[in-house]
Amino acid sequence: HAHQPNDVIRTINGVFSRDKVLTIDTMNPTVKNVEYAVRGPIVQRAIQIEKELREGVKKPFTEVIKANIGDAHAMGQQPITFFRQVLALCSYPELLNENMFPEDAKNRARRILQACGGGSVGAYSASQGIDCVRQDVARYIERRDGGVPCDPDNVYLTTGASDGIVTMLKLLVCGEGASRTGVMISIPQYPLYSAALAELGAVQVNYYLNEEKCWSMDLSELERSLAEARKHCNPKALCIINPGNPTGQVQSRQCIEDVIRFAAKERLFLMADEVYQDNVYAEGCQFHSFKKVLFELGPEYSDNVELASFHSTSKCYMGECGFRGGYMEVINMDPEVQAQLSKLVSVRLCPPVPGQALMDLVVNSPQPGEPSHTTFMKERTATLSLLAEKAKLTEQILNTVPGITCNPVQGAMYSFPNISLPEKSIKEAKALGQAPDMFYCMKLLEETGICLVPGSGFGQKDGTYHFRMTILPPTDKLKILLAKVKEFHQKFTQQYS
Amino acid sequence: HAHQPNDVIRTINGVFSRDKVLTIDTMNPTVKNVEYAVRGPIVQRAIQIEKELREGVKKPFTEVIKANIGDAHAMGQQPITFFRQVLALCSYPELLNENMFPEDAKNRARRILQACGGGSVGAYSASQGIDCVRQDVARYIERRDGGVPCDPDNVYLTTGASDGIVTMLKLLVCGEGASRTGVMISIPQYPLYSAALAELGAVQVNYYLNEEKCWSMDLSELERSLAEARKHCNPKALCIINPGNPTGQVQSRQCIEDVIRFAAKERLFLMADEVYQDNVYAEGCQFHSFKKVLFELGPEYSDNVELASFHSTSKCYMGECGFRGGYMEVINMDPEVQAQLSKLVSVRLCPPVPGQALMDLVVNSPQPGEPSHTTFMKERTATLSLLAEKAKLTEQILNTVPGITCNPVQGAMYSFPNISLPEKSIKEAKALGQAPDMFYCMKLLEETGICLVPGSGFGQKDGTYHFRMTILPPTDKLKILLAKVKEFHQKFTQQYS
Repeated sequence: HAHQPNDVIRTINGVFSRDKVLTIDTMNPTVKNVEYAVRGPIVQRAIQIEKELREGVKKPFTEVIKANIGDAHAMGQQPITFFRQVLALCSYPELLNENMFPEDAKNRARRILQACGGGSVGAYSASQGIDCVRQDVARYIERRDGGVPCDPDNVYLTTGASDGIVTMLKLLVCGEGASRTGVMISIPQYPLYSAALAELGAVQVNYYLNEEKCWSMDLSELERSLAEARKHCNPKALCIINPGNPTGQVQSRQCIEDVIRFAAKERLFLMADEVYQDNVYAEGCQFHSFKKVLFELGPEYSDNVELASFHSTSKCYMGECGFRGGYMEVINMDPEVQAQLSKLVSVRLCPPVPGQALMDLVVNSPQPGEPSHTTFMKERTATLSLLAEKAKLTEQILNTVPGITCNPVQGAMYSFPNISLPEKSIKEAKALGQAPDMFYCMKLLEETGICLVPGSGFGQKDGTYHFRMTILPPTDKLKILLAKVKEFHQKFTQQYS
Repeated sequence: HAHQPNDVIRTINGVFSRDKVLTIDTMNPTVKNVEYAVRGPIVQRAIQIEKELREGVKKPFTEVIKANIGDAHAMGQQPITFFRQVLALCSYPELLNENMFPEDAKNRARRILQACGGGSVGAYSASQGIDCVRQDVARYIERRDGGVPCDPDNVYLTTGASDGIVTMLKLLVCGEGASRTGVMISIPQYPLYSAALAELGAVQVNYYLNEEKCWSMDLSELERSLAEARKHCNPKALCIINPGNPTGQVQSRQCIEDVIRFAAKERLFLMADEVYQDNVYAEGCQFHSFKKVLFELGPEYSDNVELASFHSTSKCYMGECGFRGGYMEVINMDPEVQAQLSKLVSVRLCPPVPGQALMDLVVNSPQPGEPSHTTFMKERTATLSLLAEKAKLTEQILNTVPGITCNPVQGAMYSFPNISLPEKSIKEAKALGQAPDMFYCMKLLEETGICLVPGSGFGQKDGTYHFRMTILPPTDKLKILLAKVKEFHQKFTQQYS
């Protein structure tokens, strides 16, 4: 409809009426620039189709299979028993008097409750997070990184990793015109980054991952991207997601070292999104934390390079997305800035306490000798092994499809295959004002009920097309999904050739 | 220390060193403008003193009594049994097989779990919140407002009320210079508002509550404030907190009507912070929701005035702050803007699911005939009656102190008494660069261990001084606290006279 000027008063059906105060024309324009493909139009259409199916509308399929989002429990992954026992005990401490829970679960719950105001997870915690949880996080980081020290004062508990990432970007982004803050992000990227940068009005500085070399980072590409950005903005930070989302690669130690040296030389604040740190499947691959490598490079780097690292309860073997737990560690942050960070997080009072409790359990899981250890290890290993199997399966089957090329899913929870699209389909998509891979994914959804996210939602090299699919559906469904994608791709290619 | 230019490289102890990328000079300046007194310097000092006490440092008191924040559980309020039973069941559904929980608790848990992906509170929910929870919220609002219809599509679950308020402000705030968005907030105010406005770079437009008339809103003051603001910015929204924080008043129906007519006439988007809707204690006072009054004014208003109303699990009789549950309802929002709102909330994935579950229980509590109803009502009534008693007690005792004048605590959880400060103390405070009531509260803390928040953290009329104290401490501690405040105030007045 046409937008009326703000002060027009109209009469509709005899009732006095006026235009809105808040309209698409008067609202904050930076919000309009925000996009988030993982929950974008494809997913909205998928939800609509599910409703149509329930209402009896005939479709060429009987259910929607969602592989659009890294939501493990929604795909049938079972929670870790120990974690949920402790959370139940924290929620309803009367259960501490029952004999149904193992002693280690009770002990963890008692310890967490003792650290809560009034012994209740219903009290606000300190804004930075519960003290003892931050201490446990620090010890976890030290173990993970072979003894590199971690100060609990540098650990901030967060509402999922997204919250920490946005908070750090808020501190960094300012300036106008050519001195506007630029933030380097990988392409393809996880769209939280582009969305947050759009909202903050920062300049998004793209560096491209090398698809030919299994989505690795090239130093020359970082240099190109930075040099170009410096012509029109003030690049201050470099974001890395490792293991990669949406691309599923695991960066080598050498690559991480290169990135750190680059950041040091070019004076960039490093942001390392390491939420998939347990999700490493490929042989020869290993997770190296940015912090560990930073300290191995010696004091010239470890005393200087500013780094924020993010983790979460939502991924790895836990998959506890709904609790919105997470933490960030800041390293070499200017003390005055850190005071500002602490003040900033206090405005939102505290991260959800059940999520903090869960984060504690992740970093302080049952130890050998404790009654829950065996079950915990069995569950953890089973989940990670199954994910490794599904990663392999996905890569193998996709690579049997002519016109689809899929890099190994070395880690994380996604494959991001390259799809060849016939010229005719690209033209038809463009005529509809759609990205060609959006056109492809929308057709896939309508014809097969499979919900994937087009590569254009993550960014990709011009002229290339991809989709992101999670490896999370149960194996039988994953096989159906992959078979359907294969069949669809062949049909689609024929149809538009 | 002096701030070096960014590109200076120094050598400290023989190690190559450089200035930080992110310093107090290069960081986002809007973050520096953020202040949040409720967790400000007084509270930080209180935490330090607690530590000193634990370490055996001698003080003229043995414990810190915190009355700085509306954190009921931390002050010993017990959670509602039914809520926690359902939360335990949701966390560890194995408990559904046990005989220890009442059937209504099990039914609620089953219903919530069925609405979760994979039957797990560990799955992401829809970004707007779980469907059935939003439906329950809508029915609750309809009951509360005597049948005024509520569309669940207009309900957004949030991470506490703060999250909803900041999200709405994000949509509203834009423009530069004289067309920069202004947002009207009461003075005194809850500092989330000033903090969010500072962070977004909006113009804070103050209107003063009338302390002489029990902190009521005066139409003439709203008009004055708006007229002045229009000279230098574009005022678009009017925020009201009712029942009031920090001032504890309950607005009359007439006052709300006046505000709505004012907003309609002046074309302002209304934001009603109604998180204390069950916290009404004074005789003759009643909570009137802005939505209900809006609809009672007829279609000229109910079809036009844009309103967002906020609620939370953190206050009322629940006091479940740690779960970060909440909702907002938007009324008469432009559909295009609402689509932008839905997109914006999707970037942060979803509010914490345990908090959503808790919000559901609040709006769908045990009904007559259900096994938990009697206990629930007993617990709810006991908590609210106790708060009413403590509200009265606080007002009465404070008003016995010469130099302290306290309005009735009609609702919410705070008293905000006016304190007369001797000229000499004001001079001494100013010499130290402190607000006079900050000087007073800091001294109170050091000498008595009582932690209150100075009025200057909320805003107040020039030349007046206040503090905010919660009425939440257990009655015996509240009496000690009030006696100590009385004694301190007399001593302080003498000392500086």
